[in-house]
Parts: sequence; C-alpha cells; structure tokens
Amino acid sequence: MANPSLLILAGDGIGPEVMAEVKKIIAWFGTRRGVTFDVTEDLVGGCAYDKHGTPLHDDTMAKAQAVDAVLLGAVGGPQYDNLDFSVKPERGLLRLRKEMDLYSNLRPAQCFDALADFSSLKKEVVAGLDIVIVRELTSGVYFGEPRGIFTEGNERVGINTQRYTESEIARVARSAFELARRRNNKVCSMEKANVMESGILWRQVVQEIHDKEYPDVALSHMYADAGAMQLCRWPKQFDVIVTDNLFGDLLSDAAAMLTGSLGMLPSASLGAPMANGRPKALYEPVHGSAPDIAGQGKANPIACILSFAMALRYSFDMGDEATRVEKAVEKVLADGVRTADLMGPEGGTPVSTAQMGDAILAAL
Amino acid sequence: MANPSLLILAGDGIGPEVMAEVKKIIAWFGTRRGVTFDVTEDLVGGCAYDKHGTPLHDDTMAKAQAVDAVLLGAVGGPQYDNLDFSVKPERGLLRLRKEMDLYSNLRPAQCFDALADFSSLKKEVVAGLDIVIVRELTSGVYFGEPRGIFTEGNERVGINTQRYTESEIARVARSAFELARRRNNKVCSMEKANVMESGILWRQVVQEIHDKEYPDVALSHMYADAGAMQLCRWPKQFDVIVTDNLFGDLLSDAAAMLTGSLGMLPSASLGAPMANGRPKALYEPVHGSAPDIAGQGKANPIACILSFAMALRYSFDMGDEATRVEKAVEKVLADGVRTADLMGPEGGTPVSTAQMGDAILAAL
Ligand SMILES: CC(C)[C@H](C(=O)O)[C@@H](O)C(=O)O
Ligand SMILES: CC(C)[C@H](C(=O)O)[C@@H](O)C(=O)O
Repeated sequence: MANPSLLILAGDGIGPEVMAEVKKIIAWFGTRRGVTFDVTEDLVGGCAYDKHGTPLHDDTMAKAQAVDAVLLGAVGGPQYDNLDFSVKPERGLLRLRKEMDLYSNLRPAQCFDALADFSSLKKEVVAGLDIVIVRELTSGVYFGEPRGIFTEGNERVGINTQRYTESEIARVARSAFELARRRNNKVCSMEKANVMESGILWRQVVQEIHDKEYPDVALSHMYADAGAMQLCRWPKQFDVIVTDNLFGDLLSDAAAMLTGSLGMLPSASLGAPMANGRPKALYEPVHGSAPDIAGQGKANPIACILSFAMALRYSFDMGDEATRVEKAVEKVLADGVRTADLMGPEGGTPVSTAQMGDAILAAL
Repeated sequence: MANPSLLILAGDGIGPEVMAEVKKIIAWFGTRRGVTFDVTEDLVGGCAYDKHGTPLHDDTMAKAQAVDAVLLGAVGGPQYDNLDFSVKPERGLLRLRKEMDLYSNLRPAQCFDALADFSSLKKEVVAGLDIVIVRELTSGVYFGEPRGIFTEGNERVGINTQRYTESEIARVARSAFELARRRNNKVCSMEKANVMESGILWRQVVQEIHDKEYPDVALSHMYADAGAMQLCRWPKQFDVIVTDNLFGDLLSDAAAMLTGSLGMLPSASLGAPMANGRPKALYEPVHGSAPDIAGQGKANPIACILSFAMALRYSFDMGDEATRVEKAVEKVLADGVRTADLMGPEGGTPVSTAQMGDAILAAL
C-alpha cells in the first residue's frame, strides 16, 4: 500500500515556525514507528500572493485535492490588509475549504489539567472541560450570493447572503450526531430561529435528522446568543455543539478562550469520503498567524501538533498513535514546560517554539 | 410643561413581575421627587398575540411613537414556539425597534463590586469592569431582504440577507463616538471584514466618520471572532464596542455573562431626536422572559430598574436622578440582599422580586 500522503501549507506569520515542530513529529513517525508519510510542501495565503499574485495557486489546489490530508499553519498579516478582497490571504483558506467541500469543522475545546489555572474563567468552571464545536464550514454567509459592495442612490451598500440548503444542514448534523455517539451522546444545536428564517430551517432539519436517524442521541436547541452566554457561564453543560459557519466562528473562538490558550487548540475540517475511504481533510490550529510574535521563536506549536494528532485519528485511523501524541503533550505540560503564552503566575520552565517541540518529541 | 410620558409594555414571562418593581420607583418619583410621569400600559409579545392575534397591535405601535419613552419587560415563552414566524412574540419587539428607528442599542456591561465573586470569570478579570456595547439595532441580517424559506429543486433553502448602507453605519458609529467622548474616549469596532463585504464597508465607514468627525477618539478594529475571545480573556481592555445587529446580539450576551448575572443588565435603544429634542427611546433589560421562573417571585428586577435609570439619563436629562437609582442598587447589593440568581456560595439575604424592589426603594 502507498504511504499516506500529506500536503503541508505552513502559510504566514507563525505558521512556518509551528509547522517546523510538526515536521519533527512526522519524521519521528518515520524513523521510530515505521510510518512514513509522503510529504509535499506548498504556499497558501500572503506568501502565495507574494509569489504568484494569488493566495492559492491552482496547482496547490490540485495537490490539496490529491493528497490524503492537508496540514495548514496560518494565513494573514498586516502587510496584506489593504489587498483587494479577492486576493486576501483568507481567500486561499476559504477556497481550500470550499473546493475540497470540507463541510464539517471539528473544534475541540479541551482544558488540560496543567492549565486549568490559566483560564480567565474560574478553575471549577473549566477544569476537565471537554467539548467539541462542529461548525458548518462551506456555506452560510461566508459563501452566499449575492455579495459585495454596491452603490444605491448616492451611497454604498454592503451585502452578504446567509443561505443554507436542507442537504447542507443535514450532512453537518449527521456528522455532529456521529461524533456525539462516540462521546457523551449529547448534541446542542445553535441558531437564531427567533429572528432568521435560515435558523428556522436549520432547527427543523437538525430535528428531523435526529428523529429519523439518531433518536438515541440527546438533542437540544439553543439560540446562539444564549449559547455564547452559556459557554461563558457553564461550558461543561455541553458535549457536542453543532452550528453554522458564522456562529461557529464566534462561538468556537469564545470556547477556545475558555481553555486558557488559543495556542493549544487544533481543528479538523472534514468532507466526504474519497475513493480510498478516507475523508477529504484539512487540519489546522484554531489560532491565527500572530504577526506580532512571528519569527521570534515565541509561538506555541501545540495547537499545530495536536492538529496533526487529529489527522492521525480522523484520516489515518491511527487513534492509538494520536492518543500517544496527545499524552506526550499532556506530560510536557504537567512537567511545567511553558511557551510564553502559557506562562502564568504559577511560573514554569520558559521555552521557545523549538524547545517545546523537542520536549514533546522527547516525551513520545 | 407637560409631564414626561411613558408607555409600559411589560410583556411575557417575568416581564410583568420585574416591571411591577419599576412602577414602585416611578410612583416614588411622583410623591417624593415631584416628577410625575404620565404612564400608559399596553401589551407586547405573546400576551398581545393572545388578545389580538398579533404580537404588537397597531394602536400600541402608535402609542409607542407618541410617548417620550417606552419601557419594555420581556417577550416570549414556550407556548408561542410553534406560532408562525410572522406572529411570534419577538416580532412585536422587532417591529418596535424598526418602526421607531431605534438604531443605537446601548448595552452596558458593568460589574458591581458586591458581585465580582459571582462571575464565572476570575475576580481580577471582571472586578471594576465597565464597558458599553453599542449595537446597531434596525438593520443587518435581522431585517434584510430577501428572506424566507424557499423550495429549490426538491429541497428547502433558508435565506437571510445581511445588508448595511453607509448611512446606517455612519449614524451608529457617531453614537458610539459620542458615548466614548463622555467615557474613556476609546472605541473598538467589530466585524468580519476578512470574510464579509458588509464588514469591509462597516470598517471603512467607521474609519471615515472617525477621521472626519472624531479624530480625538482612539479607534481600533477587531474581527468579531477575536472580539468574542478578547471579551472572555480580558474585557477591561475595552471602553465602547460598536458592532452590527447580529454580532451585537452574541457579543453583548457574552459580555453580560461576564458580569455574573444577566438579571443585572439594562439597555437603551435610541433613535433620532423627536420634535421635543428627546430621542425616540425604548428601555429594556437584556435578560429574556425566563418562563421557567415566571410567576414565582424569583426574578431579579434590577435590570429592569436600571433600564428605567437609563431612561432618566438618556430621555429625561435627569442624570443625577439616574445616579441616585444606580447608587441605591449598589447599596442594596453591598448589603447582601440577593434574589435567587445572585445567590452565590458567599450567601446573603435571600429575597423575592418584590422584596428586592422594596429594598431599593428604601435605599433611595
Ligand atoms: C481566517 C478566517 C477566514 C477564519 C474564518 O473566519 O473562518 C478564521 O477566523 C477561522 O475561524 O478559521
Ligand atoms: C428576543 C430577540 C429577538 C432579541 C434579539 O435577537 O435581538 C434578544 O436576543 C435581544 O438581544 O434583545
């Protein structure tokens, strides 16, 4: 059988730094575990724009479609802020999501014991937290037409369209119910059905899929504003949250913050199964390109490393190996090894990006 | 000069209970401060639907347009969940906002010293917190057309439209800058300009209004997802936040939760000046109708009482009297008087809705 294939798109800002640590782990799998990944690298985001005038070259898109999984670092930076909308770094990422049809974005918010003190929330509110937000990733207001800035009379008007079809809602709902079955069997669906018709359809379809196909899963519905509030108040009430693209963007960032550091959180974006049975997949940290600390060895590579662990689990059926990586991260944190973002009042051993990667490698 | 006029729409659930306490305060102003309000009462939401088959009767709408200020309790309840979208309780509230053109919704998130321990966030993160979210309230995805659930091919599609004109953005931006000048002179504007054209226009117009009319105010921009995160991480970095209708809905609920109890938070929805110079105005607590505790004397009337204080300040130029009410609330909290929602591990004197109202009256 062919080696599993990976396309690495390290991107901008701290992307290349954190990805360098993932490459060490990938190499370790080759030499120590006999699992060799065929790795290709390419550009996405601002660096792709600098080279090709587009944040995602068609050749790169084609490579992404061909591999088993894509690993992405981060995109964006202030030097690209004034680019035309159509060539902004983010468009590269959004094109990957859309053309690979990665409709189900899994964003775990897990609080590591060693970091429970580090959250802005009280320890008892977050200790042991383990929830997953399943965010719809290929539709909604991110992609709906019409969109743009138009002139009406003598003023400009900005327009975007929130648009969801029944089948788009149904497939991401299924993915949330499947995940819940492997966890604590509870799904909370969030929308604004009290003010948006797209939210009404969302609620109806999620309920229908539940009643027909997943009656064993406990399903509840919550308005997204109440959801934002409940995430801040008592996040442990949730198991799996399923929501649309835009609400998922905000709610998963809020949930991420609960855990104490965005530098810790991975994500998986999954699509339909390919011919080899593996889902189309892209893995990326939830954090952004953090241009303010880029190139200084300060970035925390854990989110990117845990994203690779998700790849092991969801793309390569190597759940045990994924757990091994996750345990290594936990051990290093329990040992008090800390990148700058994790350095709280309780102290710890301050390390650079590369030292954190090495510590995790040593723990493996 | 005519007495100041108020229309009271107590609404559903706990609305009438909390409003009963406000009426005591209004009566106190008549007998003890020589300020008599002409008060009319009417129905909104589910109770209006029950009586008239519509959540807001045209006569009520006309009254709201004629008075100096509207005080609203809350709308909604599970018995109305299956009503047609067009007659849901929320439509009554949304019609008031839209037809009175209340474009600027001020939502303070203030943490009372006596309650700093009560938040799910650490005390040092929230103690002394005092920020205001200015939410655009009459446009965006709440009102944009086209909207609805349509059939395409053989499936349903849910559609809503996010739509902002330049002038809609400009006027709410001005309102935020004006407010900032009376506070700490800092505005942070939030949108998703990295993915939505309406966000690009939002950012541009806010920046233009700033540069032309309010260059003395410190202005920053943040993506709304990062904003949700920063609100959970270190909310004191903000002074005034200005954002659109939908983002404002989520972000203000998250901000509300920071302060420990939603039962504490008032809001003012302001429009253009009327002939008498007063702005069109509606005041309401941020909390909802809480059907689970309605009719049990458990509700916290403070949010509704503080909403009346905002009316004193913003509609009636009675800033000193507003402060008097706010100080009375602070005193009662410092004395340990607690409705059920405020009852934390540190204990306190448990009181009913009416007892809380009486305690505040006594403190006045
Ligand atoms: C970078 C940006 C386009 C992206 C999004 O809005 O989806 C990011 O915030 C995320 O959550 O992955
Ligand atoms: C009740 C509902 C229509 C309303 C909204 O979504 O605006 C509420 O959540 C609010 O924030 O005032």
